[in-house]
Amino acid sequence: MIRVKFIPENIEINCDYGDNLLEVARKADVFIDAPCNGNVSCGKCKVKLIKGKVDTKKTYHIKDEEWNEGYILACNSKVIEDIEIEVPSKLSSSMDKMKIEDLSTERDKQIFQRTKKLLIDNNMKLKSYVRKDYIEIDIPNLDDNISDWDRIKRHLRNYLGYTKVFCRLQMLRKIPHILRQSNFKVTITHIPRGNDRTTIVNMEEGDTTNRLYGVALDIGTTSVAACLVDLYKGELIAKASSGNAQIKYGADVINRIIYSTKKDGLDQLNRAIIHETINPLLNKMCKDSGVDKNEIIAFVCAGNTTMSHLLLGVYPDYLRLEPYIPTFLKAPFIKASELELDINPETFLYIVPSVASYVGGDITAGVLASGIWASDENVLFIDLGTNGEIVFGNKDYLMTCACSAGPAFEGGEISCGMRAASGAIEKVKIDRDTFKPNLKIIGDTKPEGICGSGIIDLIAEMMIIGIIDRRGKINKNINSRRIRFDEHGIGEYVIAFKEDYDLEKDITITEVDIDSFIRAKGAVYSGASTLIESLGMDFSVIDKVYIAGGIGNSLDIEKSIIIGLLPDIDRNKFSYVGNSSLMGCYLTLMSEDARYKLEECSNAMTYVELSVYPSYMDEFVSACFLPHTNIENFPTVKKILEV
Amino acid sequence: MIRVKFIPENIEINCDYGDNLLEVARKADVFIDAPCNGNVSCGKCKVKLIKGKVDTKKTYHIKDEEWNEGYILACNSKVIEDIEIEVPSKLSSSMDKMKIEDLSTERDKQIFQRTKKLLIDNNMKLKSYVRKDYIEIDIPNLDDNISDWDRIKRHLRNYLGYTKVFCRLQMLRKIPHILRQSNFKVTITHIPRGNDRTTIVNMEEGDTTNRLYGVALDIGTTSVAACLVDLYKGELIAKASSGNAQIKYGADVINRIIYSTKKDGLDQLNRAIIHETINPLLNKMCKDSGVDKNEIIAFVCAGNTTMSHLLLGVYPDYLRLEPYIPTFLKAPFIKASELELDINPETFLYIVPSVASYVGGDITAGVLASGIWASDENVLFIDLGTNGEIVFGNKDYLMTCACSAGPAFEGGEISCGMRAASGAIEKVKIDRDTFKPNLKIIGDTKPEGICGSGIIDLIAEMMIIGIIDRRGKINKNINSRRIRFDEHGIGEYVIAFKEDYDLEKDITITEVDIDSFIRAKGAVYSGASTLIESLGMDFSVIDKVYIAGGIGNSLDIEKSIIIGLLPDIDRNKFSYVGNSSLMGCYLTLMSEDARYKLEECSNAMTYVELSVYPSYMDEFVSACFLPHTNIENFPTVKKILEV
Repeated sequence: MIRVKFIPENIEINCDYGDNLLEVARKADVFIDAPCNGNVSCGKCKVKLIKGKVDTKKTYHIKDEEWNEGYILACNSKVIEDIEIEVPSKLSSSMDKMKIEDLSTERDKQIFQRTKKLLIDNNMKLKSYVRKDYIEIDIPNLDDNISDWDRIKRHLRNYLGYTKVFCRLQMLRKIPHILRQSNFKVTITHIPRGNDRTTIVNMEEGDTTNRLYGVALDIGTTSVAACLVDLYKGELIAKASSGNAQIKYGADVINRIIYSTKKDGLDQLNRAIIHETINPLLNKMCKDSGVDKNEIIAFVCAGNTTMSHLLLGVYPDYLRLEPYIPTFLKAPFIKASELELDINPETFLYIVPSVASYVGGDITAGVLASGIWASDENVLFIDLGTNGEIVFGNKDYLMTCACSAGPAFEGGEISCGMRAASGAIEKVKIDRDTFKPNLKIIGDTKPEGICGSGIIDLIAEMMIIGIIDRRGKINKNINSRRIRFDEHGIGEYVIAFKEDYDLEKDITITEVDIDSFIRAKGAVYSGASTLIESLGMDFSVIDKVYIAGGIGNSLDIEKSIIIGLLPDIDRNKFSYVGNSSLMGCYLTLMSEDARYKLEECSNAMTYVELSVYPSYMDEFVSACFLPHTNIENFPTVKKILEV
Repeated sequence: MIRVKFIPENIEINCDYGDNLLEVARKADVFIDAPCNGNVSCGKCKVKLIKGKVDTKKTYHIKDEEWNEGYILACNSKVIEDIEIEVPSKLSSSMDKMKIEDLSTERDKQIFQRTKKLLIDNNMKLKSYVRKDYIEIDIPNLDDNISDWDRIKRHLRNYLGYTKVFCRLQMLRKIPHILRQSNFKVTITHIPRGNDRTTIVNMEEGDTTNRLYGVALDIGTTSVAACLVDLYKGELIAKASSGNAQIKYGADVINRIIYSTKKDGLDQLNRAIIHETINPLLNKMCKDSGVDKNEIIAFVCAGNTTMSHLLLGVYPDYLRLEPYIPTFLKAPFIKASELELDINPETFLYIVPSVASYVGGDITAGVLASGIWASDENVLFIDLGTNGEIVFGNKDYLMTCACSAGPAFEGGEISCGMRAASGAIEKVKIDRDTFKPNLKIIGDTKPEGICGSGIIDLIAEMMIIGIIDRRGKINKNINSRRIRFDEHGIGEYVIAFKEDYDLEKDITITEVDIDSFIRAKGAVYSGASTLIESLGMDFSVIDKVYIAGGIGNSLDIEKSIIIGLLPDIDRNKFSYVGNSSLMGCYLTLMSEDARYKLEECSNAMTYVELSVYPSYMDEFVSACFLPHTNIENFPTVKKILEV
């Protein structure tokens, strides 16, 4: 038996000789970032050995200096004796500090109002899929002695027109007490289907129709965002967000799926999302708003197809293996108690249907919220989250595809990358003469890493100034201490010197990082162009471009065009639509009409499998360039570069 | 802390000073018969104090001799110091030894065949509400890459015509593995509603259509009987029965209801029926037949309205309180897992609907099995279980009522009464000269008490010979050592002297017992006559009388008429239909057509509340006589008595 201690949290755990250190940390519930899920490829699980020895190897992720200080990769180390490990605090806390739209900035408020307006513009009633009705039932006597349940059904038939009324066991058990305690004046919570059927899911004494609460939830691969909605007033009364606790098992869906195939892996992933992520968010919102968790009786959530599978505990591995088959796109109605969610156990969960293996419910919800389905104009919708999904269409048709962009837009697979949390560099401007970057940091604190929008800024700036060429390679002819090359000849640019900010080490971007990012942006650009070309059109037909997803508020459209992530068209056509998945869940929660529309969209969306398009691979290769091998596609960038 | 030890089982438990001994026994899970549930009225909870003292009082249930030997009533004793208590073994074991139709006697086989024939005579298809279908699903490929669930639905739509297909979470979780392990050749278990909808509840690899099992279960207040049915072959493959473990909380429904209002009472009663009664029966049948419990995926049960409430854990007290309202008559569909039944957790349980607060699903099932609904002739159906329920009708109408007969027909509230278990006297013939009874005892063992059919024989014989008069009072002029009177002048007849059978004490029937029984039989007779009179008819219109229920196989029709339990009409009109509730469950399980017919019957049955009939009370009082105050109603008995 060997003892491992993790600081600064001072968590201790016993393990066996030869156990993998990353696995041991997971067992101890110590969060170590591991986007590649232990493949020794991302180098993110770097920890510091304080006491004792491990069986490990130096990799190119660890510099000589770091190696001497005791840095090792947790995934590449075996425990062989009692040790003490320091886990970098920025990692262990990054999950809680996720910066996700809090709907309090002016832009967020506008997005929210614009989304709500969709309901009104399209004559959608503000009636949730869950309803409350206050009823005063005839009191039984010897001449009218039908059963309680028949009495309730009779009332609903005579006064509300429901001829088929159902309930479940837990509800049945409540009836005798509540009816009599309330003198047969009760409020029922029910879920109608059509005009004649309904299922009663709850019953309360007296008139509680003004207390009806629901939750909208977006389950991202990286981050999870929720809002608590007063369905009676139609108001948002609490919100919460955090990282997805599954991150410890892998940064992207592929690594999560691989983890799910391990012993207990699926169960651990399921517990991570429900017990370690969603329930804490629900509890926080209840606390903040003073709403009892049993009063939350509507729930709409959306996530990509893998997230939906993991939420329900459905084995996702066939999503990853050819021919890439999901177990389901549209989930059955499920009770909250079946997933152990901390809301009323009888709540029927509505999980937004996915479109394909890699176009999930989050995109369906995003399409609903962005209103493409009602648009006369041609809209290109791009979700830049942990992957990139694209929708193109208007009120007549909706085409969609998925790009294997990986987690780059959320800082994954970039050595100094991090999520858009406190300490993340979100904007960069490099001085043309000194090559010194001017940084904007989330939380106005000292920098810890760089997030998606910052990387876009950084690469655009480096290219414009000439620090990198259009292949992303660092110019060896620049004389600056910020530009340096390691023993293998790999170049890097120092974004922040440790001495300037009192850091443990410099924050740098390497050619390897830039290459990763170029491939990610190339995947999105070529995906969009292939999708549009599949209809025999080109970017010129686009009237609007909506950018959604976790890349965040600070995305600079101009810079995104400069690096060739977005097409070089009129800047006025672009707008950022925020977390459209969450907004779509909110609409679905608020209005049964919206839910029907959502399902209509999900059925109407035509999935285009990029890999079967012969032109896609060529297009992708051409797009793995700054901004593109064919500079003529980017006339305004061409002009800038010619200056 | 005081220690109580129960022998012969040697169970010890700690309790507090002043605790009620009956409650302590229940806590220790020691079975003490307590039909009146601790009201000090039945005298059945007699136990023997071996060591120590208790705070108790002598009641008229305990004779001087018994008192001297240490007999006390558990319900009337407070624990005040460490004690040792002997629990009479005939009581503690009577639950297991219940003699219930095992369908192996010639008469039982006939009943079973006659019941099955009903299906054929009425063109009912042998198709259960649960079906299995073997399907070979198209294997996915890159061009046909819809989700597993959509693929299953497409197959069912194209090949079986179901346009709406549902499933539940547990089922969804099985899909990816089972489809691939079976190469997409699977058997689905599903529950259709109409021709176009169905819900899949299970999926198995390969063709398992020949393995489809269901359980039919009759939940009596006193005893529970079950059979395991091979639904593929339509054969009964195992059966089991036992006492209802709720007996320790009271012998009849009223006492059970009262117990349910105590702290944890409802939960204890629910646990007693499910975990201590039904699950052991299910496990036994699985063991006997070699069927895996997960293969049992159909379940139909029937019980009186109180039993149904307790099975589902629904508070039953409003059944007992005016205006006597049940929470439900027709239960919602419930999953086996919700009740923790030891069968496939996804099984949809079908609970036969009740008709009124005191006419339960067991009667509905009995009506189905007895075929009254198809009869041109007028049928009187009498269920002599723990209570008496009566149905009168034919294919055009069905009237029903309940009599408060109490548990007398199953030996309850009779001092020497016991259930029809091993050791029970089931037939009695008294010698006209010596007054010595000739006893037939279940199990051909030494007598321990007397069951319902034995009491009927005994009272009829005593009346004919003149040991009792028509009021049930013992003739003081007979000179026999079998007839004796106690200090209060209450007479008794000795059925068995202890020395003749090596018993602890004599088995006797007292005037109090006879009085109890006369009231019970009076309630049934007057119920039947009031029910028929309510239609403006009398007993002469009856074409057939079916006797069902726990009174058992040995019921003597002639003697039942002699004491005035049954009307004095042509003996050929009577027949014993056995446990018609179990038979009705079996039919409901076997045939969806039968289940529709059952629901039709339940809706068609008109409940007559006897207590609101002004003539009922007079009729009851007149019937509390042997056979009746108006002997002219019993011409054949009149003749016998005149001899």
